[in-house]
Amino acid sequence: MDKYKQMKKKITILGSTGSIGKQALQVIDENPDNFSIEVLTTNNNDDVLVRQAIKYQPNIVVIANESKYQAVKTALKSHPIKVFAGTSAITQVASMSKIDIVLSALVGFSGLQPTISALSAGVPVALANKETLVIAGDLIIELAKLKNVPIIPVDSEHSAIFQCLQGEINNSIEKIILTASGGPFRGKTAKFLETATPAQALNHPNWDMGSKVTVDSASLMNKGLEAIEAKWLFNLQPSQIEIIVHPQSIIHSMVQFSDSSIKAQMGLPDMRLPIQYALAYPMRLSNNFPRFDINNYPYLSFESVNKQVFRNLQLAFDAMEKGGNIPCILNAANEIAVEAFLKSKIKFTEMPNIIEKTITKLSFIDKPTFSDYIETDKEAREIAMELI
Amino acid sequence: MDKYKQMKKKITILGSTGSIGKQALQVIDENPDNFSIEVLTTNNNDDVLVRQAIKYQPNIVVIANESKYQAVKTALKSHPIKVFAGTSAITQVASMSKIDIVLSALVGFSGLQPTISALSAGVPVALANKETLVIAGDLIIELAKLKNVPIIPVDSEHSAIFQCLQGEINNSIEKIILTASGGPFRGKTAKFLETATPAQALNHPNWDMGSKVTVDSASLMNKGLEAIEAKWLFNLQPSQIEIIVHPQSIIHSMVQFSDSSIKAQMGLPDMRLPIQYALAYPMRLSNNFPRFDINNYPYLSFESVNKQVFRNLQLAFDAMEKGGNIPCILNAANEIAVEAFLKSKIKFTEMPNIIEKTITKLSFIDKPTFSDYIETDKEAREIAMELI
Repeated sequence: MDKYKQMKKKITILGSTGSIGKQALQVIDENPDNFSIEVLTTNNNDDVLVRQAIKYQPNIVVIANESKYQAVKTALKSHPIKVFAGTSAITQVASMSKIDIVLSALVGFSGLQPTISALSAGVPVALANKETLVIAGDLIIELAKLKNVPIIPVDSEHSAIFQCLQGEINNSIEKIILTASGGPFRGKTAKFLETATPAQALNHPNWDMGSKVTVDSASLMNKGLEAIEAKWLFNLQPSQIEIIVHPQSIIHSMVQFSDSSIKAQMGLPDMRLPIQYALAYPMRLSNNFPRFDINNYPYLSFESVNKQVFRNLQLAFDAMEKGGNIPCILNAANEIAVEAFLKSKIKFTEMPNIIEKTITKLSFIDKPTFSDYIETDKEAREIAMELI
Repeated sequence: MDKYKQMKKKITILGSTGSIGKQALQVIDENPDNFSIEVLTTNNNDDVLVRQAIKYQPNIVVIANESKYQAVKTALKSHPIKVFAGTSAITQVASMSKIDIVLSALVGFSGLQPTISALSAGVPVALANKETLVIAGDLIIELAKLKNVPIIPVDSEHSAIFQCLQGEINNSIEKIILTASGGPFRGKTAKFLETATPAQALNHPNWDMGSKVTVDSASLMNKGLEAIEAKWLFNLQPSQIEIIVHPQSIIHSMVQFSDSSIKAQMGLPDMRLPIQYALAYPMRLSNNFPRFDINNYPYLSFESVNKQVFRNLQLAFDAMEKGGNIPCILNAANEIAVEAFLKSKIKFTEMPNIIEKTITKLSFIDKPTFSDYIETDKEAREIAMELI
């Protein structure tokens, strides 16, 4: 313990001004002996980035939006902090040596290149960016293996499975059971979903997340994307991934082993735990997060999920089964569809139609290269937009 | 995997004719490449022992009851199997070298000496005998540490915790939560317990066990003894052990870590799993045990436990807190009380009275030696019998 405590981890946070980035900084605040901040990055949020930089005194900050470079530079002129701008700068800082772990909390496709950059440089990645594995899981996992670099998941479900797999010898997973809160539309009928509004979709019962993720949670696409992530992280076949609705969000996910034993990881819904776990791994750090008290939970309940009603989930499983560039198309078309739904341009139930049509309109590539993925993502977005 | 598969473990089963012993043999039947039987022992059950010996062809069998030696010897005369008799022979075979693991499935106080014998000889112990740690946990754990020999628990609750602790660095346990089915008298009032019959107490909803254990399960003494075992196995303070009633017996127990994360081990109630896990540890072996299917369980429920009604549980926690020879007295007095209850000599609710009075009548020993424990056990039984 003491040996580990003395080893202060140097951390790069890609996307420090978003929800995960901010919670990561809270975790770091509570554990000043364990972590030091080396790099902070943001896309656009210069005000928050400057405030964070003044507080944490990183060596480097990066703002992706180059038009805000001067504002950040000026605000930090009295501090010994290097300021860079542009997307490529984010990719460059991700590969800096002497960093112990990169937390990738970027949103969307932009998370892919920096993760590749970190892994290529042999830097461990705490991965909060779903898209990285959904889009290009094959390439990413191959790279991580080649470089022998760990990817530690930050999603609560994947962190749960990762925690349950600690100390388990060989790959004795029979299946995993990803739990889903069910989101705001749990138990709703296809008819209800026809008229579901953005405001209804954004009203999540358990987790406080960004609007894109919350809509995905309402459509269960979130769970589909998580299934694809899990396939890559834990080397699974689609048939080894089960989804169960668990409205209380206490059991974060489960693993069933080949001897019938099941392990579950549980707790209150609080993203700080998987963030802290990923940053401190393989240690656990004591903290004062509110504790789950089973005496307050007379029951934990479970419901099967209806993939006919929540069609996005079925589409995601189909995409996982087909492989190649299909999950990349699914992801891109979904982003466009969600955006259109949030702007009330399409109905909730039109989202799966757009995703499905986009998939049929693009050419299937069995073994895509990285540039194939970039091209597929771009084309899929264009086609999805045309369809809207 | 292959390396491990080739290593066939040599197993000694102490108590092969009881419920745990028989289920261990079922596990071994299914995994002939992983296990070979070296020694089988029984107290009295010569017929079953002989049948097992003919089937498994161990090197040695032992029958504790010396009057049955000749019968066993004769029955096995055409087999190359050594036959021994007497309690001390059981202790001797437990310390045989070249054994990879001793499964201690003996019942009651008789399990203590052979476990000490195995640990002294450096032989790992799969421990299904509760009394060993309840009575003399301090001496046993000290010995296991001194000899650097693992004790792998077989009780479903302790196996659950042991499984959840795999891969966890250092001692980061905040608390453990032992689940209790609640037994046949779950939710019953003190008034009901006044008139509870042996037949009612033996009607356990989930687990098929011996009558002593089943009565302990009805009185929740079982959970009290398990708490004491857990204290020693996992180096806990009494305040770190929580009991929760969980009628479905699916979550076998939980560990809460210092970072608020909880791990649970789950599955259908089937003792073959913890037995197989202990024998195969650290491997998991594939099997065809029935799988838990969460789709069949719309909910898992939890209830707090009433230690005023189930007084045995309170007595066990008090004994754990006081330490010394008190848990030994508790255990001995309880065995006598259960026997008297089963013979309808005393009422269900008189059991705690007898235990409590026996504790007050014996001298407290803070740091008992092994012979102190033997003496305490003997005296406690005598006093409890007098009280009845």
